[in-house]
Amino acid sequence: MSETEFSAAPPLPDTGLDEDDRLKPEFVRAVLDLVEAGDEAGAREKVEPLHPADIADLIEIVPAEQRRALASAIAELIDGDVFAEMNDWVRDELIDALTATQVADLTADLDTDDAVAIIEDMDEDEQRAVLRALDPDDRAAIEEALSYPEESAGRLMQRELIAVPEHWSVGDVLDYLRADDQLTTDFWEIFVVDPAHHPIGTCNLSWILRTPRSVAIADVMKREQTLIPVDMDQEEVALRFQKYALISAAVIDGSGRLVGMITVDDIVHIIQEEAGEDALLLSGAGDGDINEPVRDTYYARVRWLIANLFTALVAATIITQFQDTLAQMIVLAALMPIVAGVGGNAGTQTLAVTVRALATNQLTPANTLWAVRRELAIAILNGATVAIVIGIAVGLFFANPLLGVVIGSAMLGNIVIAGLAGVLVPLTLERCNADPAISSSIFVTMVTDSMGFLVFLGLATVSGLVG
Amino acid sequence: MSETEFSAAPPLPDTGLDEDDRLKPEFVRAVLDLVEAGDEAGAREKVEPLHPADIADLIEIVPAEQRRALASAIAELIDGDVFAEMNDWVRDELIDALTATQVADLTADLDTDDAVAIIEDMDEDEQRAVLRALDPDDRAAIEEALSYPEESAGRLMQRELIAVPEHWSVGDVLDYLRADDQLTTDFWEIFVVDPAHHPIGTCNLSWILRTPRSVAIADVMKREQTLIPVDMDQEEVALRFQKYALISAAVIDGSGRLVGMITVDDIVHIIQEEAGEDALLLSGAGDGDINEPVRDTYYARVRWLIANLFTALVAATIITQFQDTLAQMIVLAALMPIVAGVGGNAGTQTLAVTVRALATNQLTPANTLWAVRRELAIAILNGATVAIVIGIAVGLFFANPLLGVVIGSAMLGNIVIAGLAGVLVPLTLERCNADPAISSSIFVTMVTDSMGFLVFLGLATVSGLVG
Repeated sequence: MSETEFSAAPPLPDTGLDEDDRLKPEFVRAVLDLVEAGDEAGAREKVEPLHPADIADLIEIVPAEQRRALASAIAELIDGDVFAEMNDWVRDELIDALTATQVADLTADLDTDDAVAIIEDMDEDEQRAVLRALDPDDRAAIEEALSYPEESAGRLMQRELIAVPEHWSVGDVLDYLRADDQLTTDFWEIFVVDPAHHPIGTCNLSWILRTPRSVAIADVMKREQTLIPVDMDQEEVALRFQKYALISAAVIDGSGRLVGMITVDDIVHIIQEEAGEDALLLSGAGDGDINEPVRDTYYARVRWLIANLFTALVAATIITQFQDTLAQMIVLAALMPIVAGVGGNAGTQTLAVTVRALATNQLTPANTLWAVRRELAIAILNGATVAIVIGIAVGLFFANPLLGVVIGSAMLGNIVIAGLAGVLVPLTLERCNADPAISSSIFVTMVTDSMGFLVFLGLATVSGLVG
Repeated sequence: MSETEFSAAPPLPDTGLDEDDRLKPEFVRAVLDLVEAGDEAGAREKVEPLHPADIADLIEIVPAEQRRALASAIAELIDGDVFAEMNDWVRDELIDALTATQVADLTADLDTDDAVAIIEDMDEDEQRAVLRALDPDDRAAIEEALSYPEESAGRLMQRELIAVPEHWSVGDVLDYLRADDQLTTDFWEIFVVDPAHHPIGTCNLSWILRTPRSVAIADVMKREQTLIPVDMDQEEVALRFQKYALISAAVIDGSGRLVGMITVDDIVHIIQEEAGEDALLLSGAGDGDINEPVRDTYYARVRWLIANLFTALVAATIITQFQDTLAQMIVLAALMPIVAGVGGNAGTQTLAVTVRALATNQLTPANTLWAVRRELAIAILNGATVAIVIGIAVGLFFANPLLGVVIGSAMLGNIVIAGLAGVLVPLTLERCNADPAISSSIFVTMVTDSMGFLVFLGLATVSGLVG
């Protein structure tokens, strides 16, 4: 083993990845050139050293029109693991091109959770065809998983796990694990169950390895467990894994029996998705997946833009009420978007923080009042600062102190309104069991736009600035 | 073991948690009442059954002014694990109240990574005092960790790990693990190293458990490893863990020697933070932590609002160029925010999607051109749809077809500009090695505001609508 093999260079050298583990454009280009030239063996040879996750990335990253040709060239490298790593949209596209038997072959080697992820998005007819092509054990496992709601623990769990009775010794466990070839290979904890298959304790493998054979497993296991009800939503499962730093957890059915296991590697991408979707939902970008078909993206985004169009019309209606004021002092028309825009920004800030704190369970009914008071305090500080800056600037520039006072007061008022809307709108939606990330920003923008124009033009009218 | 103990009810019943694992307000109230009444023993008794993560939550969730009293009442329950789970801001506040020796005692039982997390945020003087109070081994480990850059793998890793030589058998490994009391207790993989301590393979504990004692460890281990350079940024580490579904990974120094181990439970909160911060950064809300002191939050947000104030002034300057046009047709002043606002929304959508795709390595240099073309296509579709709706509505409402054509054309133009800005601005920032989430939205908003006003008022002027 030579020294140079373990230099500080990133792992997997020469496999077409850049320093951020992304496929290099040159590598992608080279593979596509081979495919286009009809040299499928050459393409396979280049792709073969890649990790399944990178093969999945390669298929995602190529332009849609060349994807089918690439997939057919490297078909024998696209196994269940590659499919399990693939973006949903791209996977659906490829799977549509396969027969039910081919899909069944792909899923046969996978753990239940990965197989379910591939099958659950298919049409019902196709699903039935694939299930018929599976062997009876796999079929039963997948049918059971599909019987649980989408995005529930039952869909995420794998049925492959190690459960042992509490009267066993560490030696019994070791002998059992070594003797039975049918057991799952990758696991991190074993579960200790009573005769009715209720979990009564969990045991890290490292504890077993560090304990003499004669010790009872019941003396090694930890009795405090974090159990996951089979119908729990995956977002709650992810929060629980994160909060208690779990590696794996037992899933129990309605009567408390152990029915499956969820491992952290299946949770990591959910944590990532759930945490990352806030920015997308707040902007109305829907799933926001760049592999989503253009038509779906268009529908998702245009609905939001039309909704925003109506809120903008509300604001426009308010402006029309002040046509006389505007006609007398046309510069107000140039200044009014400042009040609305900066207010909108202040509202968006508060909204982003509130939605995040709700999603991570940092903001709970126990500290809601405190959080609202905190946002109000920040809004007053921000509002006062921005009001002074814009008030002085406008007052001096137009040599009109009253105009400075009017725009400063309007700015302070709108930023305070924005801060309150930014925290109260998502809290109200959460109370109504709606996802605060989804529609909060429509309401908040409507409030900050309308109030910005109303307060500014209203103050301009009543202050004696015009007329 | 009675049946009822394992009903479908959530785990940890009666410990003050609601169905989402959040502390119930009644529970928090009850604890605070006991503290206020001076019944510290009663408070401790209520808090003791909680998991360290829940004790940390409790301390976070109480109003700041009662936090010190609560912490002092339940001081003996606040061990290193509780501190490790605590929000940074709240932790700093409590640690300020402790002596260096108390902090050293707290960190002594923790793995390096958790100890470092507690110590790294302290002032240098305090850090030195705590380090002096630690025993020499712990001090050396922590000093070494602190020598690596903040947010690097070197800070995240723990030095406690199991490394064995490749000539050992499975039996040798088992005997070693059982014999040495000083070894770490919680680990998920062991690393096989050559005589120079370079990692040459990794072995899941489950593989060891399933293999007879006589087999060589080199025949059980997996040679393909994902190694983490010690100076890698934590965000890259998180992406690598996620991409390759890692449970733990070896950390190597510049000469390829094994220096530590990172486990997935330390990565999960980074994945969550990094994924969730996009929404906060895009809105200019800084860290967006509700436990951040009001003054810090104020500074972070007001800087952004002032920056936005200047971009709004740019837009206002454009409007002032069209004072004559506006004076002749005051209704244009009411309509112009619609063009700017809906354009801003379209830009934000594209921006959120692009920033997300960049952060997850879905958008790479290999598919950039394709992604820009895709956003352009969606922008044209969205722009055309919204343009038709607003064009017809305005044309009919004001019985002025030319006004309808002007606002429709301006809307189409601004949404296309917004789509291009939403994808090109973050891509450009990424190329310049700047974080695209941090300042993109300032630029995009400036473009959509200014262009919205310019295109709409410009078209109104040149189309012969006025004058």
